[in-house]
Amino acid sequence: MPGPAPSRRNERSRRAILTVALDLLTETGYSDLTVEAIAARAGVGKQTIYRWWRGKGAVILDALVDAAGDIALPDTGDLGADLRAVVRGTVAEFADPRLSATTRALTIETLADDELADQVRDRLLRPQLDAVRLRLRAGQRAGQVRGDVDLDQVIELLFGPVYHRWLLRTGPLTDAYADGVVELAMAAIAP
Amino acid sequence: MPGPAPSRRNERSRRAILTVALDLLTETGYSDLTVEAIAARAGVGKQTIYRWWRGKGAVILDALVDAAGDIALPDTGDLGADLRAVVRGTVAEFADPRLSATTRALTIETLADDELADQVRDRLLRPQLDAVRLRLRAGQRAGQVRGDVDLDQVIELLFGPVYHRWLLRTGPLTDAYADGVVELAMAAIAP
Repeated sequence: MPGPAPSRRNERSRRAILTVALDLLTETGYSDLTVEAIAARAGVGKQTIYRWWRGKGAVILDALVDAAGDIALPDTGDLGADLRAVVRGTVAEFADPRLSATTRALTIETLADDELADQVRDRLLRPQLDAVRLRLRAGQRAGQVRGDVDLDQVIELLFGPVYHRWLLRTGPLTDAYADGVVELAMAAIAP
Repeated sequence: MPGPAPSRRNERSRRAILTVALDLLTETGYSDLTVEAIAARAGVGKQTIYRWWRGKGAVILDALVDAAGDIALPDTGDLGADLRAVVRGTVAEFADPRLSATTRALTIETLADDELADQVRDRLLRPQLDAVRLRLRAGQRAGQVRGDVDLDQVIELLFGPVYHRWLLRTGPLTDAYADGVVELAMAAIAP
């Protein structure tokens, strides 16, 4: 009886590598993570990883994209409440030391590597931002958002301040802060 | 006749090094800039530079702080116009390939070096953000800004979106974009 087709074996190896990568990321943090360690625990050769990925940044990106899964914002009808939930979530990720370390490391790699930057934007962030845009569009249809605002700029209004505060470490990253960001954004887009 | 006091000679060397550093930054870009090249052109030993600075990031930071000089925002009485001028300036800096490369390189170093991050924030950015806060405060006194808004959050509302767009390269960095950012922020803070 033939074994599984190569593509299915490859898919199993790929999933094993991504699972191991996230496990190791949690255990050791991004900067101490190595392709060698991922390969060893996944039971594959280092060259297998380098055949599929350019380096650990690309592996972690794929692992994070897989882990993110389907993204949809709740629509409770209360736009402010739904936005508070998502911005609180983002702020909490930046406030978490281990998640923040991963984001910091990925940001460093993307600042030095245009191709990785495009991948992070298009595969990891774009789906999240698109989900927020959908929710804003629904709010616009419901008359809770001015019809003439550029929704891409509203998205930046919600997440730009959080990145700024995280990057420059100019203030606390708390629920109250997240709520304040949403309150200002809601005032900006009110009809 | 005695020569200049050591502190004055030191100050002259320091200024020469900072001037050379900015010249070389313009000529070669940040990533190809080396402490050796700065020392050679400034006519000092490499050890002189390492005695005063931790590395090229620290030299460039000092040079940029010196070059920035005194910062004050115009107060024409028209808050929107004054904010458009400053946000357009920031957007133009991010849109300039060479300045953007310097900011990118400094950002990479600050993400990996907490002490440098604090220095960049406190010595390079804080004076600029404080100047904007002063202008917003004047607007608040003039009744153009709600009394209950947190001015630190308003500053993030103006510059956070620009950082976000620059970091993630999600859209054009133009005057029209800068004006859109200010328009949303003005709507957010209107009494």
